[in-house]
Amino acid sequence: MANDPLVIFTPSGKRGHVAPGTTVLAAARSLGVDLDSVCGGRGICSKCQVAPSYGQFSKHGVTVAEDALSDWNAVEERYDSKRGLKPGRRLGCQAQILRDVVLDVPPESQVHKQVVRKEATARDIVMDPATRLRLVEVEQPDMHEPSGDLQRLTDALRAAWDIPALSVPLPVLQKLQTALRKGNWQVTCALHQPVEDGPAQLLDLWPGLFEGPLWGLAIDLGSTTIAAHLCDLTSGTVAASAGIMNPQIRFGEDLMSRVSYAMMNEGGAAEMTAAVRDALSELARVVAGEADVPTTEIVEAVFVCNPVMHHLLLGIDPVELGQAPFALATSDSLDLSAEALDLTGLHPAGQVHLLPCIAGHVGADAAAVALSEAPDRSEDLVLIVDVGTNAEILLGNRDRVLACSSPTGPAFEGAQISSGQRAAPGAIEKIRIDPETKEPRFRVIGCDLWSNEDGFAEATAASGITGICGSGIIEAVAELRIAGLMDPSGLIGSAEQTGTARCISDGRTHQYVIHDGTAEGGPLVTVTQGDIRAIQLAKSALYAGARLLMDEFGTDTVDRVVLAGAFGAHISPLHAMVLGMIPDVALDRVTSAGNAAGTGARMALLNRAQRAEIDQTVRRITKVETAVEPRFQEHFVAANAIPHATAPFATLRSVVPLPEPRFNAGDGDGTRTRRRRRR
Amino acid sequence: MANDPLVIFTPSGKRGHVAPGTTVLAAARSLGVDLDSVCGGRGICSKCQVAPSYGQFSKHGVTVAEDALSDWNAVEERYDSKRGLKPGRRLGCQAQILRDVVLDVPPESQVHKQVVRKEATARDIVMDPATRLRLVEVEQPDMHEPSGDLQRLTDALRAAWDIPALSVPLPVLQKLQTALRKGNWQVTCALHQPVEDGPAQLLDLWPGLFEGPLWGLAIDLGSTTIAAHLCDLTSGTVAASAGIMNPQIRFGEDLMSRVSYAMMNEGGAAEMTAAVRDALSELARVVAGEADVPTTEIVEAVFVCNPVMHHLLLGIDPVELGQAPFALATSDSLDLSAEALDLTGLHPAGQVHLLPCIAGHVGADAAAVALSEAPDRSEDLVLIVDVGTNAEILLGNRDRVLACSSPTGPAFEGAQISSGQRAAPGAIEKIRIDPETKEPRFRVIGCDLWSNEDGFAEATAASGITGICGSGIIEAVAELRIAGLMDPSGLIGSAEQTGTARCISDGRTHQYVIHDGTAEGGPLVTVTQGDIRAIQLAKSALYAGARLLMDEFGTDTVDRVVLAGAFGAHISPLHAMVLGMIPDVALDRVTSAGNAAGTGARMALLNRAQRAEIDQTVRRITKVETAVEPRFQEHFVAANAIPHATAPFATLRSVVPLPEPRFNAGDGDGTRTRRRRRR
Repeated sequence: MANDPLVIFTPSGKRGHVAPGTTVLAAARSLGVDLDSVCGGRGICSKCQVAPSYGQFSKHGVTVAEDALSDWNAVEERYDSKRGLKPGRRLGCQAQILRDVVLDVPPESQVHKQVVRKEATARDIVMDPATRLRLVEVEQPDMHEPSGDLQRLTDALRAAWDIPALSVPLPVLQKLQTALRKGNWQVTCALHQPVEDGPAQLLDLWPGLFEGPLWGLAIDLGSTTIAAHLCDLTSGTVAASAGIMNPQIRFGEDLMSRVSYAMMNEGGAAEMTAAVRDALSELARVVAGEADVPTTEIVEAVFVCNPVMHHLLLGIDPVELGQAPFALATSDSLDLSAEALDLTGLHPAGQVHLLPCIAGHVGADAAAVALSEAPDRSEDLVLIVDVGTNAEILLGNRDRVLACSSPTGPAFEGAQISSGQRAAPGAIEKIRIDPETKEPRFRVIGCDLWSNEDGFAEATAASGITGICGSGIIEAVAELRIAGLMDPSGLIGSAEQTGTARCISDGRTHQYVIHDGTAEGGPLVTVTQGDIRAIQLAKSALYAGARLLMDEFGTDTVDRVVLAGAFGAHISPLHAMVLGMIPDVALDRVTSAGNAAGTGARMALLNRAQRAEIDQTVRRITKVETAVEPRFQEHFVAANAIPHATAPFATLRSVVPLPEPRFNAGDGDGTRTRRRRRR
Repeated sequence: MANDPLVIFTPSGKRGHVAPGTTVLAAARSLGVDLDSVCGGRGICSKCQVAPSYGQFSKHGVTVAEDALSDWNAVEERYDSKRGLKPGRRLGCQAQILRDVVLDVPPESQVHKQVVRKEATARDIVMDPATRLRLVEVEQPDMHEPSGDLQRLTDALRAAWDIPALSVPLPVLQKLQTALRKGNWQVTCALHQPVEDGPAQLLDLWPGLFEGPLWGLAIDLGSTTIAAHLCDLTSGTVAASAGIMNPQIRFGEDLMSRVSYAMMNEGGAAEMTAAVRDALSELARVVAGEADVPTTEIVEAVFVCNPVMHHLLLGIDPVELGQAPFALATSDSLDLSAEALDLTGLHPAGQVHLLPCIAGHVGADAAAVALSEAPDRSEDLVLIVDVGTNAEILLGNRDRVLACSSPTGPAFEGAQISSGQRAAPGAIEKIRIDPETKEPRFRVIGCDLWSNEDGFAEATAASGITGICGSGIIEAVAELRIAGLMDPSGLIGSAEQTGTARCISDGRTHQYVIHDGTAEGGPLVTVTQGDIRAIQLAKSALYAGARLLMDEFGTDTVDRVVLAGAFGAHISPLHAMVLGMIPDVALDRVTSAGNAAGTGARMALLNRAQRAEIDQTVRRITKVETAVEPRFQEHFVAANAIPHATAPFATLRSVVPLPEPRFNAGDGDGTRTRRRRRR
């Protein structure tokens, strides 16, 4: 009624009239205001705290009197004396609205609080975790109306928290009776309810009020590295992050060699499954250890990975993924127990969610990128490339999204490169070659030797160099091209042809010396003709995949490019474009999304609605299979030149002039090199 | 249409017109005729066989011509040549109805075939198992519309078999791709669908057609013995039955001593859980071995048991069941994996169903008796007593059913009896005492010495006797009462008082010598005063429980009595009534239901609808708690006399005259004995 007090909640601005005497919590619920509560209004959890504002609010058109809310009651007094309420705060479940009032809901009282992300990001993470703590009061048993303690708990959860159906693992059922009696018929339940309004599983329970924390893992399971973020399932904060190498590398560096290993070796798939599961348990220990959290408090994990890793994680032989039609055993998202995956040390009832795969070559990692970067919500046409051992490529806008993967191989990660190494201290990560002097300057991970204003050290000042990592080799090849030391076909010129003694002979080809540490017993770091061929193969595969999607979309240009993947964060857009990794586009339209797959995993971990959303989204994505598409081969061959044999790359050339020398192929030319690779 | 051919199915009598060319299987489905099919109409499983009848059928008003069905087609020819069709049979999925026809559905073609039960029975078992085999053809993968093999299997099962949702354990998912390709995209699925139209779990799958068998276990888990029936889940036949002793006996003979053991010993409950689970795995091995069936083909088990055994099986400490208000941890029926109960050797995805408990003292065994004997469907008022270490008692009719349990102790099973033993060779199982000569005659298990027409041997002819079992001791005490050797208070008279030298002194009381084998080095088998006191305690508890239910129901008489329990089958109604175990009723209104709990378990195993039914039924049963009911004590005391202190037992006395001697109590009288027991 209009005479009823007006209540205005900030920051949401939601407002309405409520009957005098309505509690703040009840008012919030009736107005759809996001106000948390674990104890269900018993005044013991304090999650529903609000801060009333007093005085005149012309913006809202109300004046709030000092007696707008009821006086502190005994419950609030007790809470304040025992656990302390911040000044100006009230318990929403106790304070009653008597007159017009403006109430601020602080971030810690919001269920759907927003998580601050460090990276520039397409979408915010809003908290709506699948696993929540809920305090509930259970009816005591009545001999004359006998029903099990579990049935009365189920009834109470239905009544207080709208849980439509409850399943209880045996180990939790075994501790139910003790917990109920110890908690004087109040227990806190850890409820895993992956679908809103869907059935819930009781993961654990505690006598009386238990306020957590509960932890979840977001895991990006890559072919080469496995990264995990340990997240607080209430606040969404990342308590620790850690990464380890995928131990399956010893069975094959790239995915297809692991599929081959499974095909050629009896029990090979099982061996790889055991290796990765062991590593995941170990990674959980490491990341929990860094945050000083017992692993048993980790109740959930979300995995994203490519299809081969997906199958190997599940213990499914990936053989079908190695041959057309590349049939997945299962494509939908999966909910499993952590136990089923032999993940040891986690909470005994720990749950695992795997994002859906898009196709036989486009996995849950691509789905996670789609979730994080949301091409399906983009106004302009965006190309997203997640660069790793395998590249996942998405192209689209709000009308339509296409996806494919392309086997770039590990060259972009510094593998199969003569002086290549992981991005670790001693690795050259950035390089510039002066077009005049042909001399290099660089940045080295873990060394701060440089004195120049732009942070690049002269070659002469460098020491402690051990090799060159993925981003370094990409920049090196692109810089050779800009400096005219390498021709468009990828051939390095001789010292005579280039006018620099850094181009030295290497059998029948030439190599460029970046750093000669041999005098001090260090390495000779060079870019060889073979390194360039490896990079050419990788970048051609990436470009051909993107180009194939553009054909399918019916476009010759894209509006913007997003480089994703942990590695994407370190690629300079200019150098990527000089190499012809991505189509020609204005440089300021190329951005990095950081580890977008990992971000997608975190989003799915912290917000169950986004699990449902990506399940739907992947069904609408058009899948393009590169492996059997003849045009892929054509695009691949044309993309071998740097930046490209036919595409003009006019936007790029307007920014940086590219010389067009032609060096002799000699005996050991690139064609020959490629032929050898094919045998 | 009326011009369409008329089809009449026998034995159901269902009839209707179908369009010419309709297959028999399609006609059966449209008319609701119970015709089986595993392969879904592909002509390979032959489950849909029917036998057409030709000629004139005045009863049905049709004449069936030779060409009423289409000619044999290639599928039928192939099936007949490869696997052989019985003469006169057609494949229902192939034969088309062209003219009026009468078709017989043989028992083996019926899904809901009726299982023949040996025992006289209240209800038939109709096959409708939770686990079924279903052949399905799965779409092949399409690279351009990529979906997982599992998703296409799920689609196929939805389309062909109306399976609304499918869950797949990881080990089954791991073999999916191989099975699909080996079976050329046809696989047989073992689907566990405990609720009709509910979600199903894929327990296993095989390439192509697999026709089973699949096996299920019906297990009656008693305090003293555990009995298992191995049932074919297609035909319902019992391939083998076996029983073993419950190894928990070493922790306590009766339920309350096991609860005490759990309370007094740290880890005691877990110890008992491990013992019974081991025994169950062993029992599965034994019963499968007898039928020469691999235990891995056992995909389901249904358990019935009392609440203490129920909790101990589940690994739940039974301490709450030992004290008011006797709260169950969970009362509803449960579906679990066999793995969760550590049942080893069964199918890896094996499923377990536990029937619901009725109350803290009235368990899933009583629920199973209610399912088997269906008091809720009885026109007249029936009292059902399931006699074991604990007696489960049900009273009711279609209006209302009451239930309680009563702690009779193990005396009825021959335990705590001076010459007592299990029902094994050498045990006296039946006895008659001549009222004139006071001489006994008996039947001994495993001995066929008797020559008399009624099959009872003279005492003098007996040898090989080792003791007396439960039914024997009950008969012996009743016979002592009929022969006037024992007075209504339960005192045995002296040789002088009774006029037979078989009544000998036993310290301060007397005992009756049934058999003296000491001359041949055998045992002296007697009924002692202590034995009678033990039987009196047990029968008083049983009668008091029944009487309490009658009070609650508001009746002094019942229309009929059903004796259930393996032991119930061996109690003579006359002797049970002379003892006053059950209320006075015409002897021909006392029947035995055999192992009704075991039968209930079999019914729940073979018919999933009956699981749902008993879940509903137990909620409508009124539970009466004997342990805290003061009237129980009153009834107990009054029932101590044989047959009863106040109830006249007029119907009984009209059949058998009961003498009313009064013997001296002496020093060692019954009162004193009872007092000693109480200390």
